[in-house]
Amino acid sequence: MIIDCHGHYTTAPAQHEHWRKQQIDAHSKGDAVPSRPAMTDQEIAATIRNGQLRMQRERGTDLTIFSPRAAGMGHHLGGAETSEAWASACNELIFRVCSLFPRNFIGVGMLPQSPGVSPKNCLAEMDRCVTAYGFVGFNLNPDPSGGYWTDPPLGDRFWYPIYEKLVELGTPAMIHVSHSCNPAFHTTGAHYLNGDTAAFMQFLTSTVFKDFPTLNIIIPHGGGAVPFHWGRFRGLAQGLNLPLLKELLLNNICFDTCIYHQPGQDLLAKVIPADNILFASEMIGAVPGVDPETGHNFDDTKRYIDALAIPEEDKAKIFEGNARRVFSRLSKQIAKQASMKGAAE
Amino acid sequence: MIIDCHGHYTTAPAQHEHWRKQQIDAHSKGDAVPSRPAMTDQEIAATIRNGQLRMQRERGTDLTIFSPRAAGMGHHLGGAETSEAWASACNELIFRVCSLFPRNFIGVGMLPQSPGVSPKNCLAEMDRCVTAYGFVGFNLNPDPSGGYWTDPPLGDRFWYPIYEKLVELGTPAMIHVSHSCNPAFHTTGAHYLNGDTAAFMQFLTSTVFKDFPTLNIIIPHGGGAVPFHWGRFRGLAQGLNLPLLKELLLNNICFDTCIYHQPGQDLLAKVIPADNILFASEMIGAVPGVDPETGHNFDDTKRYIDALAIPEEDKAKIFEGNARRVFSRLSKQIAKQASMKGAAE
Repeated sequence: MIIDCHGHYTTAPAQHEHWRKQQIDAHSKGDAVPSRPAMTDQEIAATIRNGQLRMQRERGTDLTIFSPRAAGMGHHLGGAETSEAWASACNELIFRVCSLFPRNFIGVGMLPQSPGVSPKNCLAEMDRCVTAYGFVGFNLNPDPSGGYWTDPPLGDRFWYPIYEKLVELGTPAMIHVSHSCNPAFHTTGAHYLNGDTAAFMQFLTSTVFKDFPTLNIIIPHGGGAVPFHWGRFRGLAQGLNLPLLKELLLNNICFDTCIYHQPGQDLLAKVIPADNILFASEMIGAVPGVDPETGHNFDDTKRYIDALAIPEEDKAKIFEGNARRVFSRLSKQIAKQASMKGAAE
Repeated sequence: MIIDCHGHYTTAPAQHEHWRKQQIDAHSKGDAVPSRPAMTDQEIAATIRNGQLRMQRERGTDLTIFSPRAAGMGHHLGGAETSEAWASACNELIFRVCSLFPRNFIGVGMLPQSPGVSPKNCLAEMDRCVTAYGFVGFNLNPDPSGGYWTDPPLGDRFWYPIYEKLVELGTPAMIHVSHSCNPAFHTTGAHYLNGDTAAFMQFLTSTVFKDFPTLNIIIPHGGGAVPFHWGRFRGLAQGLNLPLLKELLLNNICFDTCIYHQPGQDLLAKVIPADNILFASEMIGAVPGVDPETGHNFDDTKRYIDALAIPEEDKAKIFEGNARRVFSRLSKQIAKQASMKGAAE
């Protein structure tokens, strides 16, 4: 089984994003928010069949761990209640996709974060996502301000209620920023990668994994700049009299394979142990085009893993084994969803 | 000749940084700033002989393009006048180093930037650095706020006076942030690399190189995350209907080799044309330790270039030829300084 651990619902029915616009407009005017829009199963199924499901089949992957659109999380918009209502709507929609295609999608939730607001307000939604929806993980935004980084770093106790809940639920967090409203940071060309690098260094200088030894964190987009500068990070840790990165961080942190060319994948596989790499494509996402140098989609990352000069058992870890370990609820949820009818298949 | 295009004076006599502290204290209290401290040629020469010069000799490099300490620029501290006085002091000190060791160091200036202040206030210092000091380039900070990124992106006309002056003087700019006062960004583990990545994407989405076709920009630290994600950036440019990155940016942008392990250097040399890579170590800098995996210093980057599986003529470009091209005043300045006496040698 080939498990893509990083996909967002970027193709949701138009009325979903339209309602978001209404919600933000109403918030800025102080008006009442309109009720949420109707979406039929057929509408939802069509967006998936013509999108992510078709591409799974074309590329030969089996299952996508699926979450709300990352740039659309927009935690900087509105207030805490705005984020709560939006996260609720987005997560419910992911649940509907997973219910319609139970053998192809398993859910990961977004959190109702807001800048300056204690993430304690996320805990009820986390419980709901796992118990009611069968979600197996969460996306945690280290910068709810949308590019101004005004909240404390991830080593701060501000975030500990989230870590406690993640450990309690047996769910990992993927660290994933959202849309950048800072003109200095292009969302997918700078803010995403910079968020990954910043988060890694925040963990490196923290005691989070001493305090939560079983916490699993995924740093997406190949870890931002981290594997490319692995020597720099090893040297910085050494300069801080910290243990080797392998001991300090690699019991808890994995990187995904959202790197859109072969040389980058080769480097990732060379410097990061196979146990710490999770297959992912983030399709349909920021880079949907065809690479003229290869004739294949930039984000068809399975081809790069297939081409790696590493043992087959390492590829099996990257494609499946590590995901089943890091998402500790995943194997049970796969079994559970395998027995579901799947209204739309 | 092996030219290291990226070195900072991190070992300056203690009274230099002590005066900086006095300057900032005086600014915050509204007091008069004490006069600048005396530093003898002997004191300055000792810091270099026991530091950068010794390491040049040990490592087999010949010339360092040398600028004030990057983290020490601190453009967010004090006001515009504070930055002007500090840049003036720092640049003069670099000039003294270059005068004492004229065959080993050629200067690059820091700019008296301040957040929210038009960089027009840098132009006089730029003229002075070139005409009075023989400097061959400048470090440009894309985030004078020190980690909050409150100034416009580099494509904004806000920055055009700097680009006009750089072209007029025939000097390149290295894009280099300074100390981060944002707790989200570790200075050398996140802010430096993120500044590189953000800057690259700012140029990618700008018309700077249409407007200044002869402008030369160096993105340090191996380009941050950029070469590792070269496919992503190629795909993002394609999605924006822009030309190939080679045509769009590589007539104007080079990356340096401040990457502290072999796999990162291998990737850089694989995806970036040899014409666009400048040898650099940033010694004595953020990662001064010895890599236990190799037994050599992390920042002894010459070893990695020596080990690259690329033609010797490409190595010659990386070690020397490209620097002489990008720093268009360099060859003349090398000749000029070669004939100087060098009080301390």
